[in-house]
Parts: sequence; structure tokens; C-alpha cells
Amino acid sequence: MSAELDVYQRQRFGQRLGFGHRAGLLVVDFVNSFNDPALFGGGNIGPAIERSVALLEACRQMKLPIAFTRLVFEGDGSDHNLFVRKVPKLAVLTEDAPESFVVGELAPVPGEFVLRKRLPSAFFGTELGAHFTAKGVDTLVIIGCTTSGCVRASVLDAMSSGFRPIVVTDCVGDRALAPHEANLFDLGQKYADLMERDAVIAALAAMARERVA
Amino acid sequence: MSAELDVYQRQRFGQRLGFGHRAGLLVVDFVNSFNDPALFGGGNIGPAIERSVALLEACRQMKLPIAFTRLVFEGDGSDHNLFVRKVPKLAVLTEDAPESFVVGELAPVPGEFVLRKRLPSAFFGTELGAHFTAKGVDTLVIIGCTTSGCVRASVLDAMSSGFRPIVVTDCVGDRALAPHEANLFDLGQKYADLMERDAVIAALAAMARERVA
Amino acid sequence: MSAELDVYQRQRFGQRLGFGHRAGLLVVDFVNSFNDPALFGGGNIGPAIERSVALLEACRQMKLPIAFTRLVFEGDGSDHNLFVRKVPKLAVLTEDAPESFVVGELAPVPGEFVLRKRLPSAFFGTELGAHFTAKGVDTLVIIGCTTSGCVRASVLDAMSSGFRPIVVTDCVGDRALAPHEANLFDLGQKYADLMERDAVIAALAAMARERVA
Amino acid sequence: MSAELDVYQRQRFGQRLGFGHRAGLLVVDFVNSFNDPALFGGGNIGPAIERSVALLEACRQMKLPIAFTRLVFEGDGSDHNLFVRKVPKLAVLTEDAPESFVVGELAPVPGEFVLRKRLPSAFFGTELGAHFTAKGVDTLVIIGCTTSGCVRASVLDAMSSGFRPIVVTDCVGDRALAPHEANLFDLGQKYADLMERDAVIAALAAMARERVA
Repeated sequence: MSAELDVYQRQRFGQRLGFGHRAGLLVVDFVNSFNDPALFGGGNIGPAIERSVALLEACRQMKLPIAFTRLVFEGDGSDHNLFVRKVPKLAVLTEDAPESFVVGELAPVPGEFVLRKRLPSAFFGTELGAHFTAKGVDTLVIIGCTTSGCVRASVLDAMSSGFRPIVVTDCVGDRALAPHEANLFDLGQKYADLMERDAVIAALAAMARERVA
Repeated sequence: MSAELDVYQRQRFGQRLGFGHRAGLLVVDFVNSFNDPALFGGGNIGPAIERSVALLEACRQMKLPIAFTRLVFEGDGSDHNLFVRKVPKLAVLTEDAPESFVVGELAPVPGEFVLRKRLPSAFFGTELGAHFTAKGVDTLVIIGCTTSGCVRASVLDAMSSGFRPIVVTDCVGDRALAPHEANLFDLGQKYADLMERDAVIAALAAMARERVA
Repeated sequence: MSAELDVYQRQRFGQRLGFGHRAGLLVVDFVNSFNDPALFGGGNIGPAIERSVALLEACRQMKLPIAFTRLVFEGDGSDHNLFVRKVPKLAVLTEDAPESFVVGELAPVPGEFVLRKRLPSAFFGTELGAHFTAKGVDTLVIIGCTTSGCVRASVLDAMSSGFRPIVVTDCVGDRALAPHEANLFDLGQKYADLMERDAVIAALAAMARERVA
Repeated sequence: MSAELDVYQRQRFGQRLGFGHRAGLLVVDFVNSFNDPALFGGGNIGPAIERSVALLEACRQMKLPIAFTRLVFEGDGSDHNLFVRKVPKLAVLTEDAPESFVVGELAPVPGEFVLRKRLPSAFFGTELGAHFTAKGVDTLVIIGCTTSGCVRASVLDAMSSGFRPIVVTDCVGDRALAPHEANLFDLGQKYADLMERDAVIAALAAMARERVA
């Protein structure tokens, strides 16, 4: 942290939220087009996907509620919004285009919730908050891409929706590292706890033992 | 823009939204505590406030719908949310605390909408979107602070709500310049148009002439 | 209106909203299963569909923004919510089931927005409000079924979202007439204007002429 | 239920949701003006308030999260929305007007959440859902007035937000009995469980014992 950023510490930003009583996993936009530098990928997204495999597997074994998001638009343009106007290549992400599918390494299994969305946030204009609320979730472990885009938007809205967001720093990625780092800073100071994958898995395992006991 | 950020251009981010048919002005959290480095201020927030005076005046003369936001919490803590847990000093911003008042230079006049909020976004869990929709607004000129916090959150949600966001780059400020710059980059690439104050005033005047004609 | 209901008049409920500057058409859940008494249909839904054909055609000719809703759930149950628990037969309404398709008489044409939803309201947890806001709409003509269910929920949320709702009384229907009538009463007193189809078409035509002039 | 309404049973509406793991209490608009027939009151609202005293007391003893709503508008009209246009007398309900205060029998104590709202639903454009989600609530006991207005809107949005709504039939009231009955029918068939007060208190006590055990 540079000297300029000391102001955050003096103003007492960045307190810890911690885990609540029941966690869910949110996997944001880990789809083929974001793993392809010719479309929306690049940077450290590939490594973030690889590191996420073990976390997803751990959450499945602990039977946590899991949700995936995909960006999906209609082929006839009938649902094109301001986001598509700002980023026109999003229009390729139709329901049946492989570019819009969750990457093979992290493919959802039947019964896992796959949310189609048309905006950065996984919560805005969707039922995701209601989905997790109905399952009694109060804490959301969040992975995906991009850190400066749909991850940040979803983390903020998770907090705004009443879920404690845990951002897994080595399981989120971005097409360029400067925005990745800048957004992790903002998230950690204002909206979420930042943790590495292995520490998250250990904390979830501890929560699971406590529920059983 | 560094070489690393060329990827945004290659992937065709950052297209222009332009103005629609009717604009409103949103003034985000320009309140006393954000103009005070001992509380939440610092950086370039003061100059942003000064430059906003003429823009506010122009919007009033053009009779545009104007809304101001204030962060306000209950003194008994009954409405404290995760945001307050992350940033505990927010608790000082009660209804009657001068720290929560809009700065004198930009004080609302009777009939202007002053929205109390408890979250970064001016739209999340509020009626702001409905307020502007009912007035036929499709474009929102956005000023305020902080760029990396409540401004960014409000700009994103303006776009998600169907309003074209115009971020006035010399009328938004932040307690530290690195996050200010990093967030302007994200906003301009993905969610909003970036314009300087005088260009915005000129564009609004042109819209006003067109409505009259 | 019975003597008991005079209280609404004494308390000055039921004032008129009128039309704004730009109207859209919302067609709620006119799908095959709601036109089939063995599934969710019955009552006066069939006649409401028949009467809606001419209104839809008029709106298309006037080039108004038009949106249709369909209730759609995943076949694996991954998105089943409390509404499905309350009304279990909703689970048959999967993406490819003809029961979930808009009725043939009112089938959407390419470019018209077809919104999948999982809840009564067409606005809750969806982007419908943003869709109409981005098009500058401030008034929504609403038809569909059922009056006591998804129509009422959507009319209320239209008003809450800042759109003046016009409920077309002879183009909404319900599986039983008592709830149909009771809900029209509530809507007219508190949230919307009630008008018959031909008066709506005339008013829309007048708005269209005014825009051109 | 009349013969006409048998269709609901044949179509298998009205299944039971039951209680989840943690309940909260929502008290909708039990304010002075709704207990005054000259303003918005009448019918069976008074008796519903009286019967609610014991339920509120029981919830306080069980330390359940409790939220109250008040309709509150600005004196300068700056926040007047379509609801006020439809029902103009709502404008009297300003922050300091006794007409907008929760009735004395049910007055909130410090630390209980009092939500100002400007719309029928306690959830639309508010943080109420986030408030209960952050507290781990998955079930909402709902009382208040009017059954055909703000109660119904709030019950629907509770369900849509992922909370199982329990409507306490003898602790909700309306200015006229026909809409009261018609709306209880709709709520019980489609969105909520209907229970009498004493059965609710017994069920909450059983949940509390289970949590302790």
C-alpha cells in the first residue's frame, strides 16, 4: 500500500466481516469466452480457473448451495441493453453458443443453479439473492471473472443484499493485472473479506464441523 | 493507457453511449464528512465540489430533475448493515449530524429530491430508479464522491437500471488518486461515458434547445 | 360498489393517473397452460386472449415497445423457489414445454422482448423495468392473466417502478370471476387506471399523433 | 369457498410452506392514520392491532428480529410518486406527523428496525430483504394493515425474496371486509401460509426450543 493509501487505514476502512452461519459458493462468469484472449479473456483468468477446481470440489463435498452465472443474450437482439451497447461483442453470447458455456473444468452438474444474466452483477435484476436467502445462506464465497467487472459488481451486491462476501483472491482473475489489483484493493477496504483459497477451504470445513456438532 | 490495457481496445470495450432524450442530475454523497480528511475525505474531493457548483446551477436553470444522496444511519444502530461493519465510522452519519448534510455550496433547495441511503449505490434498495423513470429520464449526469465507492456503484446501477450514465470526470473525487483513476478507467470502458464538465453543460444545453424546438 | 366500499371514496382513493408521454405494452403470461382449464386456466381467460389480438396489433402498428412474459423453470428443479412449492404444477413449465409458450394468437415476432420469469411479478428479479426505462417509456398498458395473480403483481410493480399502469379490463382474465373482480377493484383504487380496450387504443393513437405533430 | 373456487383445489394451489429455521416478525403500517376511519382506517383494523400486542410481546421475548414499517413522505412533495398521485391523502404522512407514527400499543423500542417506505410493499425499493437476510432469517411472520394493500404487497415480495411468509389472519386488518377476505384467499392459495395468532406463537415457541436444544 502506497503512502497515499494510508488514508484508508486512518479512516478505519477494511474491518473484517468474518463468516456467518451458512455459506454458499458463487461462480461468476467462468465461461469459455472469458477464458479466450480473442474474446473477453487474457491476464490471469486461466490460472484462476485452474485453482478453482479444488474449491468447487470441496464445496460440493460439503453440500453447500452453489450457483454459477453465464452472460446470455437473445440472438435477435431483443434484450440488448446498455451493457451490450458499451461492449458490443457481448452479443455473441447466445444460449447455444459454446462461448457462453461454463468452462469444462468447472461445469455445473444437474441440480446446481445456473443463472443467466445480462448485466455485470449476478444480483441486479435476478433472483439470486432470493435463491440464497431461501437456503438460509448468510455468507457467500465468490470466485470468477473478471475481478474489475462482474466479480466486483456481484461482490458489492452480495454485501448490499445482506450476504457477507468472501473474495477468493487466487480464484478470481482479470484480462489485465492493474484493474485486478485496483479492484481487489477497493473490495477489501469497503465491501468484502479477501482470503486465499486454502484458507477458505479450511474455514468452510470448520463451519461444516460446527454444524454437525 | 499501458500496453497491458490495450486488450480493452482489441476486445472493443469502451464504445460511446451518448445522450438520450431527457437527462437528470445525480449528486452522490457530496456531504460534509466526505469533504473532511479526518472523516471520509481527502484527495481531490474538495476541488470536485467546487467545480460542481456551476454544473448544478446550469441544471437548475434547465429545470432538469435533480437528486442528491446522503448516507444516513439510525443513532440506535437498528439499521446497521454489513457496510457499517466494514467501515465503522459510517455510524456517525445520523439524520441530524452536520457530517451527514450536503455541503453548503451544493445545498438542495425545496422540491429537490434528497435520498437517504445506507449502501454505496444510490439505486440499490431505494426508489431512485423509479423516481427518474416517472420523470421520463433516460440519461443521468453523475457527480459526487467517492469515485471508487458510491459514485462507481451508482454509475453501474444507473446503467443496469436503463439510464445512460455520463460521469463528469472533473466533478467526481476520491480520498486517494490511484483508486480515482483506476475506477474512472473501469467506468469508461464498461459502463458509462466520461466527459468533462464544460462539455456536459454544452451537451445539456443542446438537448434543451432541441426539446423546445 | 357496496355500501361498505364507500369508505374508499370518502378517503379519496382511486384518483386517475392518466397517460404520460410514451407508452409500452406488457403481455403477462398469456401462455398455453393458462388457456387450459386442466392446468392453470379457466374462467374468462380465453375471451381475454381473443380480445387482446386487436390491441397487440394496434401497438405493433404504432411501434410501441412490447414485452411478453413466460413462466419458465428448469427441468432439474435447480431453480425451484417458494412459488413452485406453493403451486407445484408450475414445474411443468420448462423452456421447451409447449405449455410454457405464448399462445399462438399472440405469438411474439422476432425483436419483441420475451421475458422468462419465475415469480408472479414481471418486474421482481428481472430487467423489465430497465428495459422499458431505456426506451423512455413512462406508461404501461398491461394485459394478460391471471388478474388476481401475475397481472396484479406486475401492475403493482409497474407503479412502484415509476410506470403509470393502465389495466385493460377486457384483456385480463382469471380462472375464477370472484378474484378477477376483487383484484380489479383493488388495482383501480390504489395502483392503476382501469380502461376498456377500445378506449386504450384510442388514447394510444392520440399519443402517437401528438408525438408526430 | 364457492363452487367456482374449486378450480384452485383441482389445480393444486395452496400447498403448505411451513416454517424454516429462523423467523422474523414484520409489522406493516400499523400507524395512527390507519387506525383512524377519517384517514385510512376502518373495518377490522382496530381489533387486529389489539390482537397483535401479545404476538409482538412473544416475539420480543423470543428475541426474534422485528421490523416495523411506516409510510413517510417529504413535506415539500419532492418524493411524491405515483402512489401519492393515486391516493393523495398519503401526503399527510410526513416524518413528524403523529398520523405516521406506529400506534402506541405496538410502539417500537430502541434497537428495533423502523423502515420508512413510500410504496405498498415493505420490500420494493428498500433494504428490508437485506436486513433479514443478514440476520439469517428464512421465515417471516407478517401482521399489519391493510390486508388488500401493503400487507398483500409485502407478503408477495417476502415470498419473492425467499422468505416463507406466514400471514397471521387475526392480526391483519382492512378498512372493508370484502377486500380483506378476497386478499386472504389469494395469499393463502398462491403465496403464503395462513395461520391464527395462537398457533403462530406456539410454532415459534417450538422453533425456539429446537434452536436451544
